[in-house]
Amino acid sequence: DPSLKIFSLSSNRALAQEIANVIGLELGKCSVNQFSDGEIQINIEESIRGCDVYVVQSTNEPVNHHLMELLIMIDALKRASAKTINLVMPYYGYARQDRKARAREPITAKLVANLIETAGATRMINLDLHAPQIQGFFDIPNDHLMGVPILGDYYKEKNFNKEDIVIVSPDHGGVTRARRLADRLKAPIAIIDKRRPRPNVAEVMNIVGNVEGKIAILIDDIIDTAGTITLAASALKENGAKEVYACCTHPVLSGPAIERIENSEIKELIVTNSIALPEEKKISKIKELSVAALLGEAIIRVHENQSVSTLFD
Amino acid sequence: DPSLKIFSLSSNRALAQEIANVIGLELGKCSVNQFSDGEIQINIEESIRGCDVYVVQSTNEPVNHHLMELLIMIDALKRASAKTINLVMPYYGYARQDRKARAREPITAKLVANLIETAGATRMINLDLHAPQIQGFFDIPNDHLMGVPILGDYYKEKNFNKEDIVIVSPDHGGVTRARRLADRLKAPIAIIDKRRPRPNVAEVMNIVGNVEGKIAILIDDIIDTAGTITLAASALKENGAKEVYACCTHPVLSGPAIERIENSEIKELIVTNSIALPEEKKISKIKELSVAALLGEAIIRVHENQSVSTLFD
Ligand SMILES: Nc1ncnc2c1ncn2[C@@H]1O[C@H](COP(=O)(O)O)[C@@H](O)[C@H]1O
Ligand SMILES: Nc1ncnc2c1ncn2[C@@H]1O[C@H](COP(=O)(O)O)[C@@H](O)[C@H]1O
Repeated sequence: DPSLKIFSLSSNRALAQEIANVIGLELGKCSVNQFSDGEIQINIEESIRGCDVYVVQSTNEPVNHHLMELLIMIDALKRASAKTINLVMPYYGYARQDRKARAREPITAKLVANLIETAGATRMINLDLHAPQIQGFFDIPNDHLMGVPILGDYYKEKNFNKEDIVIVSPDHGGVTRARRLADRLKAPIAIIDKRRPRPNVAEVMNIVGNVEGKIAILIDDIIDTAGTITLAASALKENGAKEVYACCTHPVLSGPAIERIENSEIKELIVTNSIALPEEKKISKIKELSVAALLGEAIIRVHENQSVSTLFD
Repeated sequence: DPSLKIFSLSSNRALAQEIANVIGLELGKCSVNQFSDGEIQINIEESIRGCDVYVVQSTNEPVNHHLMELLIMIDALKRASAKTINLVMPYYGYARQDRKARAREPITAKLVANLIETAGATRMINLDLHAPQIQGFFDIPNDHLMGVPILGDYYKEKNFNKEDIVIVSPDHGGVTRARRLADRLKAPIAIIDKRRPRPNVAEVMNIVGNVEGKIAILIDDIIDTAGTITLAASALKENGAKEVYACCTHPVLSGPAIERIENSEIKELIVTNSIALPEEKKISKIKELSVAALLGEAIIRVHENQSVSTLFD
């Protein structure tokens, strides 16, 4: 279909190439550079007049650079008369700033949504938004995919004894996600119930659910500095878990993350390639699963006006 | 006036402090940090409900970071119920991408204007926009200040013999600016008339106007890699200029700029503090003039609903 074009920006060219392969297309030609003073220079190098254009870009670190690249690309596509401009944004940066937690804070996740719409995007495809409410920050249609089926399939192939495993949410906010993975693996759940007994007193890590003698699988959407997940792994071990595995969709892995994971009780960490791992973060404990087939299939269905919801069966 | 507040972001705190001193105010309290993964975190630390807020920020390098800082701050101010949000943006990054010079290019200067309006700014104060047409990219009111009076006053104090000086535009686009400086110094102008005789043949530097035995003063709005200005200085010397001075409003000075200026025929380069010079760019040939009094006076007049146009007399 010559009206379907896929372009990659600079955050994750390997993933974009994989997605193009899944669909059986070449990536669109486009130069993405920087001027001497750091300003982004984009030039689309083939006609896209009347086309349905899909742009693959995650807004991971350097987040402001990747976001501006995306906005400038949307501007260029709009002025070059694309029929539709569809963003494939596996990782949505600033998603954690999705509410005013304190007075006089910004809600940057909403700002980013407004910026994307202002630039001229007509549709979004996302993967595991930190809060599903972020869909409502957009007025354009949004297809929200989930990483759980991919993570679940991986653990299914491990052929753990069903009675042996327990899926663990590292905090209160992630229980729904843990439940979803547990359903796929027909396993029970447990929750790390962190709380501070009094102000200025260390947090207590209580575990709700039975982990004694079990293979515990921790699941989160984002692992950033890896403090939460590695402390959770220690708590699980202290409470008698036999082995601790962990998985997440978005490996942000900033600051001390790699060192913490390396030195943690986590036996293996499964992540997706929603964010490209630089060489120095590719340690043997971390295994990457690809979301290219999922995203490629979603693009085909969106382009053919078919439902994407069955992608979760 | 307690309803007037000035905040500084991170691009040029020294200038913001100077402006606050001119007005006789303290800078507003506000923390501007980064999370471990590079995402910007802003918290306004005093009430600004019902206030007229002025935010001082240039979008020089790192341009995408400085721009996002500004957009996030505007979002925070809007949600904290500021009455008006006035941007004092001495240097407007991406201003040179103000038209489609080739097919399928973005017009990033217009995109940036849309982003700023979407975030919620209600007014802009700018200094020497690369093209005055950028004012028309905004629907919000815009006060456009000029650096020429400040640069002109500096050369007036040098007490050059009027008959000895000539003001030179380094290219065709800057002739109006050169004319404006020449008027203030009662001097004639000359133009570096670069052209390429045939494709793939080196450019020829022709000089229109008389520079023989003269003190030539080159003027530009932005000096970026300093290629244009240093080649112009050589051409002036070759054509008999006695001495070459240069000035600009915005010292972008990226890549080889400092080395080129150091090794050039330019005797002294005058710049303004619209962009903060990092230590490594503070060489003895470069002298900074402050725009704080100009911007401070503009803020006072805007706040009191007075005309700012007389600032150019
Ligand atoms: N990039 C970031 N890194 C670390 N913390 C963040 C980041 N962005 C937002 N936050 C904080 O994380 C909290 C939201 O996380 P959560 O409670 O998991 O939704 C907010 O209160 C923010 O202050
Ligand atoms: N940051 C930048 N650094 C160098 N050149 C640029 C930059 N931004 C835009 N340009 C180019 O500069 C030209 C505009 O400069 P001008 O002709 O002086 O208005 C455009 O054709 C752009 O391709």
